[in-house]
Amino acid sequence: MTISHEPTPNTAHWVFAHPRSTSFNARLFGDGVTELSRTHRVATSDLYAQGFNPVLPDAELDVTLGTASGPAGGAYGSVAFPDDVLEEQRKFAAAELLVLQFPLWWYGPPAILKGWTDRVLTNGFAYGDMDPELGVPRRYGDGGLSGRRALVVVTVGEDERSIGERGISGDLDSLLFPLTHGALWYVGVETFDLHVVYDADGLDAAGVDREAERLRTRIAGLGDEQPRRYRALRDGDYRGTRALRSDIHPGRTDFGIHLAD
Amino acid sequence: MTISHEPTPNTAHWVFAHPRSTSFNARLFGDGVTELSRTHRVATSDLYAQGFNPVLPDAELDVTLGTASGPAGGAYGSVAFPDDVLEEQRKFAAAELLVLQFPLWWYGPPAILKGWTDRVLTNGFAYGDMDPELGVPRRYGDGGLSGRRALVVVTVGEDERSIGERGISGDLDSLLFPLTHGALWYVGVETFDLHVVYDADGLDAAGVDREAERLRTRIAGLGDEQPRRYRALRDGDYRGTRALRSDIHPGRTDFGIHLAD
Repeated sequence: MTISHEPTPNTAHWVFAHPRSTSFNARLFGDGVTELSRTHRVATSDLYAQGFNPVLPDAELDVTLGTASGPAGGAYGSVAFPDDVLEEQRKFAAAELLVLQFPLWWYGPPAILKGWTDRVLTNGFAYGDMDPELGVPRRYGDGGLSGRRALVVVTVGEDERSIGERGISGDLDSLLFPLTHGALWYVGVETFDLHVVYDADGLDAAGVDREAERLRTRIAGLGDEQPRRYRALRDGDYRGTRALRSDIHPGRTDFGIHLAD
Repeated sequence: MTISHEPTPNTAHWVFAHPRSTSFNARLFGDGVTELSRTHRVATSDLYAQGFNPVLPDAELDVTLGTASGPAGGAYGSVAFPDDVLEEQRKFAAAELLVLQFPLWWYGPPAILKGWTDRVLTNGFAYGDMDPELGVPRRYGDGGLSGRRALVVVTVGEDERSIGERGISGDLDSLLFPLTHGALWYVGVETFDLHVVYDADGLDAAGVDREAERLRTRIAGLGDEQPRRYRALRDGDYRGTRALRSDIHPGRTDFGIHLAD
C-alpha cells in the first residue's frame, strides 16, 4: 500500500480557529481568504462556526493510533469514518496549500485546532505506509500528504522579545514545533516561515488595518517564497530512525538542529 | 487584588485524558489514584468520562484572555462561569499536588486536556494580578496557583532515543515545555521530572504490570523528590519581562536555558 493524495493545482485549504466572528482573527481570516481566492480555489474550515468536535473518541482510536503493519492500519477503508473527519480529509487532500490560523492560547493552538490534528491526521490517510527502501514507515518529510506546503498564521499577546529567541516564554518557532514538525512535517508537509502578529491584543483600528494588509501582501507573494525545510528521515541525517548524527551541530539540543542546512 | 488559593494539605487533583476505560492508560490511572490515596485525599477529573468540553467559547473569551489592568480582569467574579469550569478550578485550587496524565498525540496533550488549560486557567483565577514590587503581572513562578507541584504522566509510542535529546521527534521535555512552563510554571506551579512510559503501544501484560508498579513506586516516593524549577520572573534572570540575560548560557537557545541553575 502506498498512501498518495494528489493535490489539485491552485487549490488551498484554510483552517481557522477563533470563536468570535467580530474578532481581529476573523478579520484576518476574511481578508486572507479573499486575497488567496484571487489565485486559488479556497476551501475553508471555520472550526468554531462549523462546531467541529476536537475530542477523538474511543471508536476512532485504533485507526488513528495503529501502525501500518498491524491490524489497525489494515482496517482503514473498512471503518466507517464520521463525515466530519472525511470532509476535513477531503479538503486537506485536495489542497496544495494549507493555512492554519489561530490565536496562541497557553503557548499552543486552541483545543479545537489541536483536536483537528488528533482526528483528521489518521493512520492510513496521513501516514502509515512503509518506505520500500528504508523499510521503515514513511514519515518526516515523506508522509501521506507530501508535496504540500503550509502557512501557519498565529496571533500572540506578547512582544517579539518575550516570545522570541531566549525570550522568557520560549521562542515561538520552538513552541509550535509540535505542530510544524511533529504533525505537518511528519506527514510530509513543508511549512513557510510563521506569519506572526505580535502584541495582537493591543492593536488599534489602524493597527488592525496594517496587519490585514501585511497578511494580504504575504499571501500575494507566497508563490515566490521558499518554504523552510526540516531534515527528512530519508536524508540520512539521523542514526536510523533515532537521534541526529553527532557530527551535525554537535552539542546543540535546540529544535533548530532539525532544520535542513 | 491578590489572587491566592490556599491548598489543603495532603490533597491532590488527578486529571486524566484517555477515551478507553480498558486502556493501559486507564490501568495507570486506577493504580496511580489508589496509590496516591494512601497519603492524599484525591479528587479526580476523568475528562473523557465526564464529557468535559475543551472548546473555549466566545462567552468565556474576555475573562480568559483579558488583562488584570483592563475591564476583563475586573469582571472576574461578576461573570457567571459555567459549572464545569468552576468545578475544575475548585479541585485544582484545593490541591497541593496536581497530576496530569495523558497519551502523547501529535507530540502534545490530547485536545481534551489542552482545552482543560484553555478553559480552567482563567484570568483572575490562575493569573492576572500585579506584583507590587516589580509592577508587572505575577507570572512565571508566581501566579495564582503558586505553592503547588505537578507531576506529568505521559505515555508515548516512541523509544527514548527518537524522542530524547537530539531525537528525530524532538525531546519530550521540550515538546511539553508549553505545558510545564507555558501553562503550569506561568501560574506558579513547579513540576517534577516527567514520568514517561516509552514504547507504550508495544507493552505485553508483564510490561503493563511493570509500568504500573513503576508508577506506584514513583508516587509513593514523590514526597522525597525535589521538583525541577524553571527560572522565575522575580529571579532577575530576564531583562525585565523579556529575554534571558546574555551572560546566562550565552549562545544557547534550547528550552533548557529556562531551568534554574
